[in-house]
Amino acid sequence: MAEDKVLSIEAKKAENFSEWYNQVLLRSGFIDQSDVSGVLVFLPSAYFAWQTITSVVDLEFKKIGIEDTYFPLLIPEKLLKKESEHFEGFIPEVAWVTETGNTKLDERLAIRPTSETIMYKSYSKWIRSWRDLPLRYNQWNNVLRWEFKHPTPFIRSREFLWNEGHSVFATEGESLAERDQILAIYTNVLKEYLALPGIIGMKSENEKFAGAVASYSIEHIMPDGWALQGPDFHNDGQNFAKAFDIKFLDKDGKTAYAYQNTFAITTRELGVMVATHGDDKGLVIPPRLACIQVVIVPIYKKGNQADVKAFAEHMHAELRGNFRVRLDDREGYSPGFKFNEWELKGVPLRIEIGEKEMSSNNVMVVRRDTGEKQLISNKDLSKSISALLGKIHENLYDKAVKFLESHVTKVNSYDDFKKVLKEKGGIITAPWCGDKECELKIKEEMGTKITNIPLDQGKFGTKCIICAKKSKYAANFARSY
Amino acid sequence: MAEDKVLSIEAKKAENFSEWYNQVLLRSGFIDQSDVSGVLVFLPSAYFAWQTITSVVDLEFKKIGIEDTYFPLLIPEKLLKKESEHFEGFIPEVAWVTETGNTKLDERLAIRPTSETIMYKSYSKWIRSWRDLPLRYNQWNNVLRWEFKHPTPFIRSREFLWNEGHSVFATEGESLAERDQILAIYTNVLKEYLALPGIIGMKSENEKFAGAVASYSIEHIMPDGWALQGPDFHNDGQNFAKAFDIKFLDKDGKTAYAYQNTFAITTRELGVMVATHGDDKGLVIPPRLACIQVVIVPIYKKGNQADVKAFAEHMHAELRGNFRVRLDDREGYSPGFKFNEWELKGVPLRIEIGEKEMSSNNVMVVRRDTGEKQLISNKDLSKSISALLGKIHENLYDKAVKFLESHVTKVNSYDDFKKVLKEKGGIITAPWCGDKECELKIKEEMGTKITNIPLDQGKFGTKCIICAKKSKYAANFARSY
Repeated sequence: MAEDKVLSIEAKKAENFSEWYNQVLLRSGFIDQSDVSGVLVFLPSAYFAWQTITSVVDLEFKKIGIEDTYFPLLIPEKLLKKESEHFEGFIPEVAWVTETGNTKLDERLAIRPTSETIMYKSYSKWIRSWRDLPLRYNQWNNVLRWEFKHPTPFIRSREFLWNEGHSVFATEGESLAERDQILAIYTNVLKEYLALPGIIGMKSENEKFAGAVASYSIEHIMPDGWALQGPDFHNDGQNFAKAFDIKFLDKDGKTAYAYQNTFAITTRELGVMVATHGDDKGLVIPPRLACIQVVIVPIYKKGNQADVKAFAEHMHAELRGNFRVRLDDREGYSPGFKFNEWELKGVPLRIEIGEKEMSSNNVMVVRRDTGEKQLISNKDLSKSISALLGKIHENLYDKAVKFLESHVTKVNSYDDFKKVLKEKGGIITAPWCGDKECELKIKEEMGTKITNIPLDQGKFGTKCIICAKKSKYAANFARSY
Repeated sequence: MAEDKVLSIEAKKAENFSEWYNQVLLRSGFIDQSDVSGVLVFLPSAYFAWQTITSVVDLEFKKIGIEDTYFPLLIPEKLLKKESEHFEGFIPEVAWVTETGNTKLDERLAIRPTSETIMYKSYSKWIRSWRDLPLRYNQWNNVLRWEFKHPTPFIRSREFLWNEGHSVFATEGESLAERDQILAIYTNVLKEYLALPGIIGMKSENEKFAGAVASYSIEHIMPDGWALQGPDFHNDGQNFAKAFDIKFLDKDGKTAYAYQNTFAITTRELGVMVATHGDDKGLVIPPRLACIQVVIVPIYKKGNQADVKAFAEHMHAELRGNFRVRLDDREGYSPGFKFNEWELKGVPLRIEIGEKEMSSNNVMVVRRDTGEKQLISNKDLSKSISALLGKIHENLYDKAVKFLESHVTKVNSYDDFKKVLKEKGGIITAPWCGDKECELKIKEEMGTKITNIPLDQGKFGTKCIICAKKSKYAANFARSY
C-alpha cells in the first residue's frame, strides 16, 4: 500500500557510476528532472545544502570586506559581444531573449552566462579615484549556459547557481593577495561542510580563462577516476580594466588601470558531494549540510505503541534544540521501510526506539556512513550525538582524501604515463616543460588535459615527459569532465 | 578634490516625492540604473537589507515546516499557456527566449514571471497519497515581468527578487490556517526589520489574483498618499489542483483534489522602506537592515591626529564585535563631508571623536533619524549604542504608524469620500455593499480602487456609499501604485 516507492538503487557505484549517480539523485528526492532539457529541480535536501554553503561562504566573504550586489539577469547583446575575445567561449551557449509580450526587441538580450560585461561597464563609471578602491563586489545568482554536450545533473547543467566575485584593486600586490584569501575560503567550506578535498593549482596557459593573466582551480577526483574542476579564481591583471576602461587617478594624480580578480563556487559541488560520499544504498550527506541530521524511528510492538511514541516524542523534543531532527512516526510504513528510505536520503544518523530502548535507558544509534550500530546512553545524548556527527564528517572527509590520494600517481616518463592511465586512471603528475605543444600532444594522444599545476609542487623529475627538455612544472594530467 | 561627489538631494520629499525618491536611491549608492530599461543594480546597502529580510523570513518559514526548493528559470510556452485563464495577466509581460547560441528553439521558453505552472506540473507527479501532504515548498528567486508602464525602482521593476511559497494541503482547514501563519511572518518582518506598518485585508473579487478563491494583502501608504500593495497571500482552494490535476488518495482510499496557497514578499519592500523613512538629507535605514549601523568619524586638530586615530581605532575594535561598524579614517575628506555622506547613505548612528571626546571619556553620538546629538559615556558604550539603535527603530516604526493612521479616513457618504480624496487623499474607509458595480463606479469616477477589505473591520456605516443598499464590508479605497 504505502510502501510502493522505489527505495533501492539498482546500479552499482563501482560498476556503472553514471547510472548510479542519476538513480541516487532522482530516487532519493534530491533533485527531479524538469520540462526543460538539461535543467533540474532542486528539492529541499539539495537546496538546503546549497543555502548552507552560500551562508558560510558569504560570511567569510564579508569578513574580508567583500560585499554582495545584484546585477540584472539580462545583458544587451552589444555589451556582451563588446569583449568577444574574452567571452567568445560563452557566445555559442547564450540563451537569447528576442521578444517581450508580443513585441520584438530592437536588440537581443542575453541571459547572463556570467556577468563581467554588465558589471564592468558599471565599474568603469563608478571608479574614478584610488579612494574608490578596493571595490570588492560579489553576486549570488543564477546563470544559464546552453551547453549542447550531454547534460549531467549539477556537473553539466544549463542553469546553475553560483557566486561570482568581481573585485578591483589599485595595485597588483593587493589583487594577488586576494587569491590566497579566496582559495582558503573555498578550501575550507569544501573541507568543513562538503567533506571534500581538492587539489589547488594554477591552470595552464592553454586551459586558463581567456580574460585572465592566471587562473587557479580546486580540482576534484570523481569515483570513476575522472577529474572535475571545482571552484576557481582568476587573476585578470589589467586585461578587463583595459577592455572596459576601468581606470582611476592614483595618489599622485596619474591615471592608472585597475587590477581585477574573478572567482566562483557553483552548485556543481553538490554533484561532487553526492558522487563522492554516496554508496549503493543511496545518498550520504555530510552532517553539516544535511537538512535532516538525525531521524528517530519508533519501533512498536503490540500494546506498547502509546508508550514508545511518547518516549520518541520526548527524545525528539530534547534533541530538536541542538540538531535538525525528524521523528518519523508515520503510520502504515514498517520500520524496515523507513530505515531504507532514510538511508536512501542520506540522513547521517538514525535512532531506533523500541521496547528494549525504553527499559534500558539506551538508544540504538545507526551511522549512515559506516552502517555501524551502537547503543548509546540517554544521558548526555545530545553530547554523544554531536560527537558522532563530528566523527561521521571526519570519516567522510578522510575517506575522500584517501580516495583522492590513491588516485594521484607520479610518473617521470611517457611510457609510465600511458601505463598508469590505462591500468589505473585518475590524476597523473608528470614533469612538463611548460610548452603548449607538449600539452596538446598528450591531450591528443591520451585524451587527458592538464587539470592544473598544483601549488604544492613537491619534488619532480627534471625532464618533460614529452620533449625531454628541462621541466618547469609538475603538472596534473587527467581525463576530465 | 576628493569632495566632488554630489552629496545632496535637491528635490524635497514633501514637494516632489517622485523626483526625491529617484535622487535618494541613486545618489546614496543604494542602487544604480542598468543598461536594460526598468531593471536596476542592487548595490551593497540594498542587497544587504534584502539578504537580511530573506534570512529572517526563511528562518520563520522553516520553523513552520516550509522547505526551500529551486525550480528552473525557463518555462516552456505550452506549459505557461496551459492555464491561460489564471495567467493571462502575465502573458503580455513575458520575456521570451527564442534562440540559444545560433539555434532557433522549436518552442519558446518564458523567463518565469511566477512559477505556478512549472511547479504544479511537478506537484501533480509527486503527490499521490495523503501521506505526501502537506507539501509546503518555497523558492527564493528572480522573476521578470516586462511591464510597459513607467518603471519605478523597486516599486515597478521588470526584474525583481522575491519568495514564492506554494503549499499543498489535504484539507481546506489546514490551508486556511496557513494564511494567518504567513501574514504574521510578513507583518513581523515588516515591523521588526523594515520598521513598516501595513493594513492587512482581503482583496475584493475584482482585485484578487485570478487563480485564487481569496487573496489577502498587506497594504502600505506612500509619502504621496498613494497606496502600494505589499506582501500577499492567495488561498487558491482547489482551483489549481483541478487545473493541474493535483489529486491524492485520501485515508479512505478516495481520490480528492488538494487545497493550495501561494504567497510572496518582494524587493518592492525596499522601495517602501526608502520612501517611508528617508528625508531631505537622504536615506534613513532601519538599524536591523543597515549594512553599516554605526560610523565612527575621527575629528583631527593640528598635532593630535595620531592620538585621535588610535582612540578611534580602539573604539572601532571594541564595537565591531557587537555592531556593523565602520571607522571612516579616509584622508582628504573633511569631517563635514563625511557627515553628509553617511547621512545620505542612511547610517543610523554616527560617533564623533575629537580632542574633547578623548579627554572627557564621552563620545558625541548623532542619530540619523532625529539629528539629535548626545554625549555618551565610554563606559558601557556597547550597551548604550544597542539601546539607541533600538530607539531609532522604534521611532521609525512609530512615525510610520502615525503617518499611516493619519492617512486613513473613515467616511459614510460618497460626498465625504470625494471631499477627503480631494483635500487629503490617502486611504478612505467606506461601507460597501460588496457588489462589483459600485466598486467599478468609484474606480471610474475617482480613480481609486479597493486596496483591500481590512481584516480588522471595526464599526462601519450600514449603507453602501454608492447604492445605499446594506453594506457588507468596510472597504479601503485609494489611489494606488
